[in-house]
Amino acid sequence: ELRDALVASFGDRLLAGRRVLVSAGPTYEDIDPVRFIGNRSSGRMGFAVAAAAHEAGADVTLVAGPVSLPTPVGVRRIDVRSAREMHEAVLANAATTDIYVGAAAVGDYRPEAPASDKLKKHDGQPLHLELTENPDIIGALAVLPSHPFLVGFAAETQSIADYAKDKLRRKGLDMIAANDVSAGRGFEVAENALHIYWADGDAVLPNMPKTELARQLVAHIADRYRTKRT
Amino acid sequence: ELRDALVASFGDRLLAGRRVLVSAGPTYEDIDPVRFIGNRSSGRMGFAVAAAAHEAGADVTLVAGPVSLPTPVGVRRIDVRSAREMHEAVLANAATTDIYVGAAAVGDYRPEAPASDKLKKHDGQPLHLELTENPDIIGALAVLPSHPFLVGFAAETQSIADYAKDKLRRKGLDMIAANDVSAGRGFEVAENALHIYWADGDAVLPNMPKTELARQLVAHIADRYRTKRT
Repeated sequence: ELRDALVASFGDRLLAGRRVLVSAGPTYEDIDPVRFIGNRSSGRMGFAVAAAAHEAGADVTLVAGPVSLPTPVGVRRIDVRSAREMHEAVLANAATTDIYVGAAAVGDYRPEAPASDKLKKHDGQPLHLELTENPDIIGALAVLPSHPFLVGFAAETQSIADYAKDKLRRKGLDMIAANDVSAGRGFEVAENALHIYWADGDAVLPNMPKTELARQLVAHIADRYRTKRT
Repeated sequence: ELRDALVASFGDRLLAGRRVLVSAGPTYEDIDPVRFIGNRSSGRMGFAVAAAAHEAGADVTLVAGPVSLPTPVGVRRIDVRSAREMHEAVLANAATTDIYVGAAAVGDYRPEAPASDKLKKHDGQPLHLELTENPDIIGALAVLPSHPFLVGFAAETQSIADYAKDKLRRKGLDMIAANDVSAGRGFEVAENALHIYWADGDAVLPNMPKTELARQLVAHIADRYRTKRT
């Protein structure tokens, strides 16, 4: 079976000589100097993917949102806070990347006009927050004339398979990893399961520690990457 | 000088037999299962106050928002996420508390109706978030017929002294610690400075490690608490 063969041969350095760019963690969008809109990503899945890609022989750059995780050994790390900072860091590295894995939970929206001073509470009054869309990072990579092999994530609470396959096609990705984050799964936990899809196939990676899940995901990425290039 | 004398006599267990309740950390208000509104409090100041109160001989309960900090030795800890959960935990312990230190950065607002599924992005459309006020925790304690000695915090980016003194009076607190969080100070850092105020006096605690700052704050609290009771 593919998975077992790949896991067994992991020492063969499936990604030797490849340059892999991974985004990981949440992004935080400031409302004012104190408050922000965040999300529950711990960054563990992306950090595990970066570590697994390094193990597999790749030259790895990790663009990390605000997380409290140590940098995987041998991995180059760029820290960012907001979606726009992440967008900028990823695009700046796109030309020297063979494979991009977008594992970050990028905030879709940011406050239209962050306040430079802390907003005061107005007793009894509701507060309206106007949010505007952040740039679509993997979408921006997909429209580059010569773009990396693109692996996206879809973290959803419902209709996960349909949404993931639609996102794969719509954004022109090479692979997508669907992640069920309902009922406390996926985020802020050490284990996870993924269902990965590509244009003409799919694979289920059942619940397991994220470090091991990342190794199996990297093996599938290496396999599809090789297939696409030959 | 008061400070030196108190620091020197800290071994005298200034709060022996007193029951101290401390709130610490941020609160997170869920927008949907993935996104939330948070704030930059690391919880370090509140945790340091709990540790210092325990050192001073108090029986300490710590109500902690989502932080990644170890529980101080000898302290009873209750973990919460939202402002409403913190409100409930604090009020449930009020009757058995002599001194309350509200060091948490409680979210003033929460989304009016959190979504049970992840909100989808609607391309090009801004998003409106309607926020409603959270309960005022220290305000709820202040109106109890027999309430603990109340120590509040005011984290502001401007007009800090005026705002702190106004909050002291308006909410009927016994002491307030004003915390300048402009320009990256106060939040997410290991050092801090405080200016504390009570009805007929004030004291400046200059920039120092939060552990030491907490000891000096606790010494002032013990002093004012003793004065008030006699």
